[in-house]
Amino acid sequence: MAIRIFITGGTFDKEYNELNGELYFKDTHMQELLTLGRSRLLVNIKTLMMIDSLEMTAEHRALIAAECNQSTEDKIVITHGTDTMAETAGVLARSVQDKTIVLTGAMIPIKFGSSDGLFNLGSALAFVQSLPAGVYVAMNGRYFNWDNVRKNRQTGIFEELKAVSSGM
Amino acid sequence: MAIRIFITGGTFDKEYNELNGELYFKDTHMQELLTLGRSRLLVNIKTLMMIDSLEMTAEHRALIAAECNQSTEDKIVITHGTDTMAETAGVLARSVQDKTIVLTGAMIPIKFGSSDGLFNLGSALAFVQSLPAGVYVAMNGRYFNWDNVRKNRQTGIFEELKAVSSGM
Amino acid sequence: MAIRIFITGGTFDKEYNELNGELYFKDTHMQELLTLGRSRLLVNIKTLMMIDSLEMTAEHRALIAAECNQSTEDKIVITHGTDTMAETAGVLARSVQDKTIVLTGAMIPIKFGSSDGLFNLGSALAFVQSLPAGVYVAMNGRYFNWDNVRKNRQTGIFEELKAVSSGM
Amino acid sequence: MAIRIFITGGTFDKEYNELNGELYFKDTHMQELLTLGRSRLLVNIKTLMMIDSLEMTAEHRALIAAECNQSTEDKIVITHGTDTMAETAGVLARSVQDKTIVLTGAMIPIKFGSSDGLFNLGSALAFVQSLPAGVYVAMNGRYFNWDNVRKNRQTGIFEELKAVSSGM
Repeated sequence: MAIRIFITGGTFDKEYNELNGELYFKDTHMQELLTLGRSRLLVNIKTLMMIDSLEMTAEHRALIAAECNQSTEDKIVITHGTDTMAETAGVLARSVQDKTIVLTGAMIPIKFGSSDGLFNLGSALAFVQSLPAGVYVAMNGRYFNWDNVRKNRQTGIFEELKAVSSGM
Repeated sequence: MAIRIFITGGTFDKEYNELNGELYFKDTHMQELLTLGRSRLLVNIKTLMMIDSLEMTAEHRALIAAECNQSTEDKIVITHGTDTMAETAGVLARSVQDKTIVLTGAMIPIKFGSSDGLFNLGSALAFVQSLPAGVYVAMNGRYFNWDNVRKNRQTGIFEELKAVSSGM
Repeated sequence: MAIRIFITGGTFDKEYNELNGELYFKDTHMQELLTLGRSRLLVNIKTLMMIDSLEMTAEHRALIAAECNQSTEDKIVITHGTDTMAETAGVLARSVQDKTIVLTGAMIPIKFGSSDGLFNLGSALAFVQSLPAGVYVAMNGRYFNWDNVRKNRQTGIFEELKAVSSGM
Repeated sequence: MAIRIFITGGTFDKEYNELNGELYFKDTHMQELLTLGRSRLLVNIKTLMMIDSLEMTAEHRALIAAECNQSTEDKIVITHGTDTMAETAGVLARSVQDKTIVLTGAMIPIKFGSSDGLFNLGSALAFVQSLPAGVYVAMNGRYFNWDNVRKNRQTGIFEELKAVSSGM
């Protein structure tokens, strides 16, 4: 059974425009990374949009949710900008049932030498194969449930909303 | 709860000796890769040996098994040469109980530009967090049970021993 | 006799700020590149400024010229943004005598995987050792006299102001 | 006027065979490096052989010399293994007249992340454009006359045969 991969943009796929010195989107580097990782997973890749996640609107998120619902695959990885990844996860959790959805991205564009993108992709593809149905964020080697994650803007690190308490 | 990482060598950690043109082992690059991946996992890294897996003997495997048994962590990732990864997985499955052990490695040294090592590491660390107790090999984006995996020497790809049959 | 290297910024030394997604300057990567190139040249490196060359003013250029004049070395390499490299070359040609000065830079930051920076640096350091006194731009594997060079903004390529004519 | 580039192999072009773990030669990476360096030089590339320079015989060197003599270009860069680069330089100096020939190579294969190959190539292409007729070795950011260079096998660094004396 194939894994569905949806591309939405984010730092992950940003490139450097050498004519004007700005970062921009051209094509996704997903296939390139899968080849680099010698992946033998059966995947179906579809680019839904190529935008910075700060520009993502309710319409964009509704589109992603619709695509997840229409997908015949029940394992879905979504590349997404990190800034609003948790927000999109929430929308998907409320509108998609019975599928394992893992959102991931990168803090550094994968065309930079020092990108975390390949690590995160390996991690997301593994989590989507092994976690039960639900919506998750995979960053920093960890996975988070959609309702207990935020990006700490000061540190750039993903963390739980609150420390896990026990015994209460 | 921390993840234990054991280093045993393999292509993963091979380096190029620029004085004699040969590949050799110096130190592991594990910490460097975890930093690159912006990993925030709590890990305890220990180098058990630095050898090519074709040189791995029964004594080496007994040592790895003993270390797995003595480990206080019940999630263990082991970097290992690809040629005999499946054989070591079998030894561990027969001697270690109640732990999730994931063996991984690389087809290309991680110091090469085109290495699969970072992808595999992301994958192995995700599988070890999400799979039930057992011994697994994580390569090519997939995971394999210890008793149903081999490296195809002609293609360099990990595959099941037999095609999964159904309906019988 | 040592070669003087002056750092002024430009695309060459730009880095990606993973907290806000912008390109910025931190420290120069000059020493890192010289180590990568196994350079055994005796060099004295000094950072004069770290700015985008579109922000370079007459005062900045006067400072660079003064530093070139005060330098005890008569071979000088200057890293510089590409957009106004030719303009700075002109200022230096009019104010510095009897020294070989080579300006170079990069179209892509050297922290990107696909940067031309290491190639350009190797080229600039070679030209400064072998060309007679004068002010030159070294880009695209070529060298240009200060009074016959411009960056073509459409293509990103350095070229002569006019085709070299002959036989007239 | 074009620059002639002859490829002979050496560490420069070695690749990692992921099926058997050995280093080997496939194709040259010259065009890839020129593209990376955004080179706009007019070059004619020809692969003469793909061998380790320790395996280079008198016949191989005679072939290289013949190709240099037949070349219509009078500026020639030769990629070559570092171990016997100085020996080949000597053969060329004795058999080729009135051309500028620069031999270069790499201590680390260019497919490794930490290769000096791109730096050396930038350097060699610059020296060949700016040095008078003669045979030179370009390594470590420097150039050496063919009769005053050796590779120090202990350090991997190219150096003069003797310190340059003066005033005698």
